[in-house]
Amino acid sequence: MKTVNLGVIGYGYWGPNLARNFFAANDCNLKAVADARPERLAVLAKVFPSVKGVKDANDIINDPEIDAVVIATSVFTHFPLAKKALLAGKHVMIEKPMTASVAEADELIELAIQKGLTLMVDHTFLYTGAVAKMKELIDSKEVGTPRYFDSSRINLGLFQPDVNVIWDLAPHDLSILTYLVGEKPASINATGISHTKNGIENIAYMTVNYDSDFIAHFNVSWTSPVKVRQTLIGGDLKMIVYNDLEPSEKIRVYDTGYNHKIEEYENKIMVDYRTGDVYIPKIGTQEALAGVANDFVQSIINKREPRANAQLGRQVVRILEASQVSIKNNGKEVCIR
Amino acid sequence: MKTVNLGVIGYGYWGPNLARNFFAANDCNLKAVADARPERLAVLAKVFPSVKGVKDANDIINDPEIDAVVIATSVFTHFPLAKKALLAGKHVMIEKPMTASVAEADELIELAIQKGLTLMVDHTFLYTGAVAKMKELIDSKEVGTPRYFDSSRINLGLFQPDVNVIWDLAPHDLSILTYLVGEKPASINATGISHTKNGIENIAYMTVNYDSDFIAHFNVSWTSPVKVRQTLIGGDLKMIVYNDLEPSEKIRVYDTGYNHKIEEYENKIMVDYRTGDVYIPKIGTQEALAGVANDFVQSIINKREPRANAQLGRQVVRILEASQVSIKNNGKEVCIR
Amino acid sequence: MKTVNLGVIGYGYWGPNLARNFFAANDCNLKAVADARPERLAVLAKVFPSVKGVKDANDIINDPEIDAVVIATSVFTHFPLAKKALLAGKHVMIEKPMTASVAEADELIELAIQKGLTLMVDHTFLYTGAVAKMKELIDSKEVGTPRYFDSSRINLGLFQPDVNVIWDLAPHDLSILTYLVGEKPASINATGISHTKNGIENIAYMTVNYDSDFIAHFNVSWTSPVKVRQTLIGGDLKMIVYNDLEPSEKIRVYDTGYNHKIEEYENKIMVDYRTGDVYIPKIGTQEALAGVANDFVQSIINKREPRANAQLGRQVVRILEASQVSIKNNGKEVCIR
Amino acid sequence: MKTVNLGVIGYGYWGPNLARNFFAANDCNLKAVADARPERLAVLAKVFPSVKGVKDANDIINDPEIDAVVIATSVFTHFPLAKKALLAGKHVMIEKPMTASVAEADELIELAIQKGLTLMVDHTFLYTGAVAKMKELIDSKEVGTPRYFDSSRINLGLFQPDVNVIWDLAPHDLSILTYLVGEKPASINATGISHTKNGIENIAYMTVNYDSDFIAHFNVSWTSPVKVRQTLIGGDLKMIVYNDLEPSEKIRVYDTGYNHKIEEYENKIMVDYRTGDVYIPKIGTQEALAGVANDFVQSIINKREPRANAQLGRQVVRILEASQVSIKNNGKEVCIR
Repeated sequence: MKTVNLGVIGYGYWGPNLARNFFAANDCNLKAVADARPERLAVLAKVFPSVKGVKDANDIINDPEIDAVVIATSVFTHFPLAKKALLAGKHVMIEKPMTASVAEADELIELAIQKGLTLMVDHTFLYTGAVAKMKELIDSKEVGTPRYFDSSRINLGLFQPDVNVIWDLAPHDLSILTYLVGEKPASINATGISHTKNGIENIAYMTVNYDSDFIAHFNVSWTSPVKVRQTLIGGDLKMIVYNDLEPSEKIRVYDTGYNHKIEEYENKIMVDYRTGDVYIPKIGTQEALAGVANDFVQSIINKREPRANAQLGRQVVRILEASQVSIKNNGKEVCIR
Repeated sequence: MKTVNLGVIGYGYWGPNLARNFFAANDCNLKAVADARPERLAVLAKVFPSVKGVKDANDIINDPEIDAVVIATSVFTHFPLAKKALLAGKHVMIEKPMTASVAEADELIELAIQKGLTLMVDHTFLYTGAVAKMKELIDSKEVGTPRYFDSSRINLGLFQPDVNVIWDLAPHDLSILTYLVGEKPASINATGISHTKNGIENIAYMTVNYDSDFIAHFNVSWTSPVKVRQTLIGGDLKMIVYNDLEPSEKIRVYDTGYNHKIEEYENKIMVDYRTGDVYIPKIGTQEALAGVANDFVQSIINKREPRANAQLGRQVVRILEASQVSIKNNGKEVCIR
Repeated sequence: MKTVNLGVIGYGYWGPNLARNFFAANDCNLKAVADARPERLAVLAKVFPSVKGVKDANDIINDPEIDAVVIATSVFTHFPLAKKALLAGKHVMIEKPMTASVAEADELIELAIQKGLTLMVDHTFLYTGAVAKMKELIDSKEVGTPRYFDSSRINLGLFQPDVNVIWDLAPHDLSILTYLVGEKPASINATGISHTKNGIENIAYMTVNYDSDFIAHFNVSWTSPVKVRQTLIGGDLKMIVYNDLEPSEKIRVYDTGYNHKIEEYENKIMVDYRTGDVYIPKIGTQEALAGVANDFVQSIINKREPRANAQLGRQVVRILEASQVSIKNNGKEVCIR
Repeated sequence: MKTVNLGVIGYGYWGPNLARNFFAANDCNLKAVADARPERLAVLAKVFPSVKGVKDANDIINDPEIDAVVIATSVFTHFPLAKKALLAGKHVMIEKPMTASVAEADELIELAIQKGLTLMVDHTFLYTGAVAKMKELIDSKEVGTPRYFDSSRINLGLFQPDVNVIWDLAPHDLSILTYLVGEKPASINATGISHTKNGIENIAYMTVNYDSDFIAHFNVSWTSPVKVRQTLIGGDLKMIVYNDLEPSEKIRVYDTGYNHKIEEYENKIMVDYRTGDVYIPKIGTQEALAGVANDFVQSIINKREPRANAQLGRQVVRILEASQVSIKNNGKEVCIR
């Protein structure tokens, strides 16, 4: 294949961004966009007069000239649409989170393998300059052995009517965690609270436990007066503070190891607050979604695995699913080994 | 009683601050300080030539001229020293946390009641201008019904050899929570990790659950490259951000209610990031420990209950104790009703 | 007139923003855009297929169906183009700064008056929520009598080949100063330095003096490693800090008067760092340029004076011109009374 | 000389800090402190019972056992006291600014040379870790050729009754400038405003011009609602932001050269906002005044020149004096070559 003919299903909040980036991607031809709402198709017609707007997703799934389908609908429709598209022989990219359950994810993965099709999840953050830099810092062992990952993603946000705040906000940070840290998680604890009558949590806390002494924690909220998008990643040699709200200085690397100091600590010798320089690496400013579009297209053409592959997407769903079990059982540990 | 004759036991890290403030307090006469280390007594002699230095705590406890004893030793000695002092008829203030267990706290409380003595805990933060302002904002109903309390207290800190990071850092925030919010907690979940061979957690997370839809969460760490001392308190009318590292602007009040907006949220109407003004109240800058000293002295003289009373101190120990049970049981909910 | 037929001259950096906003403005019909560069007209055709692209500005100026012309070309061409357009009976809006000299501004103003035409300058900042809020705070006397205006606009910026950094960056802040403060300036001092062979200053400092005890100062630079867009406005009752880089909290109002305290100061009584609360008013987030477009169109239709009127634009040029005289005379005071 | 016997004249705001540091300095014996106010001597007696308190400065100047005198009185008494002390054969350190005029400074310098005595000025900032780090960055040529120095020192400060805000606040930054940059200044422009009846400026701006294309600028104010202590130092290879209010991260080094880019700039090629990494060097946290005390004592003992020597102190006074002439002449350039 030289050029991928592509259709997008769903032209709501995120769909236009996907359409714009696939329209601009090399070796890609955005042929059609499906949305049941006439007013959304009207917007499409104005912005992309050359792209066909269709009401029914099946018109894309069954179009023999279309090679690949991007699904940007609500999470509960990901599975049926993706399954149909794979069965119809299309390569598929799904908006995050991949599916509403691990069982669904497994079925899609198996189907894609059987059919030899590319299956990818739009975990956009994996394509940012900041995450690329952190991957480099960890893979090069500059930060040493990772010891913890502590993320806060809170703001005054839209209450979702169908999924809780973990399903809404945590997939970003879970995809980053999964991408950066090789080790598989062992278990989950989650707690939270709902301030609405529907019982859907708008504040939640989650710990991800590992067999090693690594730990990850997530603080997510739709009801914070301040917006925070911050992750601390501690290694035994260096530590990273990743503040996604900083316009250009998103990553700070602290030359603050603590491995070799533990004996001193146990003897209660006072530790200096900063033990070395801090540096703020320059980070690429490309649009992450352009990287997503390009990776999907080139993975299809070159029959390679995309960065945000289905296994990574499934791992995120695995943790989300377990968090829900834990939260319903008052924070009880849920094993996911 | 017109003047309280007072002795301090322990002249290590915090003792000198206590001595300085009781030395300066009205209606108080700092008579003696006990510390087993000669070099500490030498420092005392230089700074307070008029105060007697003694090696043995019993010399203070058994001194018939001493009315009140302040105990600033390690947590495991709080109970035996305080018990002896109460039995000897002394009023007692104990460094936080009050005791190593609830049983110990209960025994001291009962003893103080029997003897008609003042029993107080040095929860210094309750005497800061910032906490006083938050108490005012909550008691006046300006923030409405409190819905959550979310605290982070992390930095590159001294690893304690005998207590974990929750016992070391959380008492500050737990005392603030207990002081500000009337409702009694129902249960605790805690998770954490130790990066040393002694198994003492240096990173931990704790959720405090309530019978209402209020929730509290604590993030404590000795291994963060950045120092954070921040608490969010959300009410349904307003929200408070309390940043203790700000030199003068510690409290920000956001006119950001969400109670009356929930219907809109459920219909997915986008919420504006800030819905009203923010204001930063002017806060008194008195030294908190001077307030502690004064409250202890005046509570003795006027036979009144101090702000940081023993019941509040016991409640903090109750949560600490439960957190340890939960953490050892992999985050299992521990009921404390 | 019910609808204004409008043409834009110049489709470079700012022209597309003007076109977009006039295209969307009520009672306005964007008919044509002129740019000598074919590649710019190609971009125009893609974005606004319904708008005519012409190579020659005269095709707009002489088009009898066009009522109003927007000039977004380099500053040295503002005067000849605007003069031609006014002579042809068109209403005119000019990109800031209005002209390259006061003489030019005066000639355009006189011509507009003679012909009964609207003449406006695109001082976009006057239409931001932040400036509107400051205008309100000053006009309502909440800040008391203004005493100083201190502005910094520095970053790592593009070196202009034909105008110095004052002409490039100061017009924003000078328009805000002129809009907020009624008093006319009396004189100018300016200093600066050029780090290029062409002798055009890339760093400059300017003081604007008044007959009263009000003072204004401007710090502009193309060579700062950090971006600063901050203005302090001190009144004798309150003070404003305007930080344009803050996403939502652009304005902070300090309840920090000093008028009534001066006697104390002279007796050397120490002043508390903050003497009252700070508040951060909520600010409208409308796009400023939409307000510019709307004001131009409605000023034409209703024969009223626009906010960013020609007199204000001329005042800005008056100061810019004087700054250049001062800077060439080593900072000598230049009277502009 | 093995030990320096030392007396301090003036025990007001700064004197206690000087006394404390000379008391603790090696090879130094703080013998006496003079202050005319009995209540100040009472404080002295409490803190340093071993140090003699005297009412009359002459009792120190004429004490044959005293080798060195530290003068911490108001600026107008620096010259007569220092002259007397030098004539009496004492080594002298004077609080900054050194004297009220260059003529006075010159007379003291000549006298010290004639008598072979150490003459030093307490420019404390030269002994901070931050300034030491900047000196290292500049002397090692890491920042390249310095091109500008831009300092802001503003806050809500005490109005001085006898000197203006430049004399009060600028000496700190002028001493740093003089220490860091070898080139001698050529001329001064200064402007300002007084908001009190005494005509003493509480806001002022000063440009220091050089024969090269280096420039320095100072913004000082006693009437800012926010406290700023920031200096930008631009070299053609790197740039430094020095924020003295940061508790530990006072220095940021931007890898942002612009020398080699000027040709591109002239062709209007857009410059990226940050062109490289930023790093925050670890800085020593010793008390600066301990370094001052030590340097004075060791310079006397080893007959060497102190860092904050009299020539540097005189250079600061030279600029202060010229600023006053310029400000009185409406910002006119004052040559100081």
